[in-house]
Amino acid sequence: MGKVVAGASMSLDGYVAGPDQSGFEHLFDWYNNGDVAMPVGGEGTRLDLKMSQVSASRFTELIQATGALVVGRFLYDQTNGWDGEHPMQCPVVVLTHNPPEQHSEHFVFVTEGIEAAVAKAKEIAGDKNVGLNSGTITRQALDAGLVDELEVDLVPVILGGGTPFFGAIANVPVKLQGPVSVIEGTGVTHLSYLVTKG
Amino acid sequence: MGKVVAGASMSLDGYVAGPDQSGFEHLFDWYNNGDVAMPVGGEGTRLDLKMSQVSASRFTELIQATGALVVGRFLYDQTNGWDGEHPMQCPVVVLTHNPPEQHSEHFVFVTEGIEAAVAKAKEIAGDKNVGLNSGTITRQALDAGLVDELEVDLVPVILGGGTPFFGAIANVPVKLQGPVSVIEGTGVTHLSYLVTKG
Repeated sequence: MGKVVAGASMSLDGYVAGPDQSGFEHLFDWYNNGDVAMPVGGEGTRLDLKMSQVSASRFTELIQATGALVVGRFLYDQTNGWDGEHPMQCPVVVLTHNPPEQHSEHFVFVTEGIEAAVAKAKEIAGDKNVGLNSGTITRQALDAGLVDELEVDLVPVILGGGTPFFGAIANVPVKLQGPVSVIEGTGVTHLSYLVTKG
Repeated sequence: MGKVVAGASMSLDGYVAGPDQSGFEHLFDWYNNGDVAMPVGGEGTRLDLKMSQVSASRFTELIQATGALVVGRFLYDQTNGWDGEHPMQCPVVVLTHNPPEQHSEHFVFVTEGIEAAVAKAKEIAGDKNVGLNSGTITRQALDAGLVDELEVDLVPVILGGGTPFFGAIANVPVKLQGPVSVIEGTGVTHLSYLVTKG
């Protein structure tokens, strides 16, 4: 059984998006500030990223370890359903109250809440990990005790407001172990933490 | 001339205090989770901390480099003026609208705003650094472009709310360089960033 891993590019002050959906040029600068080609996505959705060597290695490991993603409807809509396929090219479970009538075969819609969405993603992922994106999904999953690991790509910028990665979690404090891994990229520090259960 | 350095123990979600002034047992766990004795404070205010070796070395460097502190009135009141002397045993400039009538000789009160408080602290510190504590002072100083460096002691806990280290900074995004130093302690990751000016 794989792990449930919540991950995001986060500003030093804890935001995954700045005020009014700003700041992405800073949060995702590390996707394109290196010289190692990192093509992601399938036909029609291909993105040619260029990362530092360490970030490329880490990103590749992450993609290979992930068997399914759970995302919220906001992210799905904001990206227009990634035009049919998520750049990580794995199945995506979308948690929503109102599934769309038409959608690509790479997406599954779950309406019964975060437990059901994560259970569905685990079923799809098999031995691989389930990835959670982003703030709202992570908050719900932490509150439900479903998260095993946090992968924070900590970016050297202060955004001053916006969408927090963790938000107003009800069941706090959430104690973590680690970082169990610290990888210094260019314009990003990749930090891994284990969530202490019980 | 020394640098102006804002520093704090901060949760992964960006707080220097949890809801209702909670969470300090997590944020400052690294002050007392090691086996290297680190006595701080003067007579009557002595604290016998016990840190990991790496945190003790880092803490010693920080104390030796700091010539004066700037704090807000809230922190001064909350600590009862550190009972007369700050544990770092350096002069403290307190920014306040209403200076107290009586206070220990180790404190200076400034009413003319953050620029005046930092200027006074620089005058006292000479070649050494000026330290800023904590959230409100750091926010004001960042907005005024007065901060050279951030020293974040990142603690593996999510507090879910409380007092943010950075808060609603007006002049965002604040771009940083680094981390220029990453030191892994026990239950804390010491991160240093330079503030990009202009």
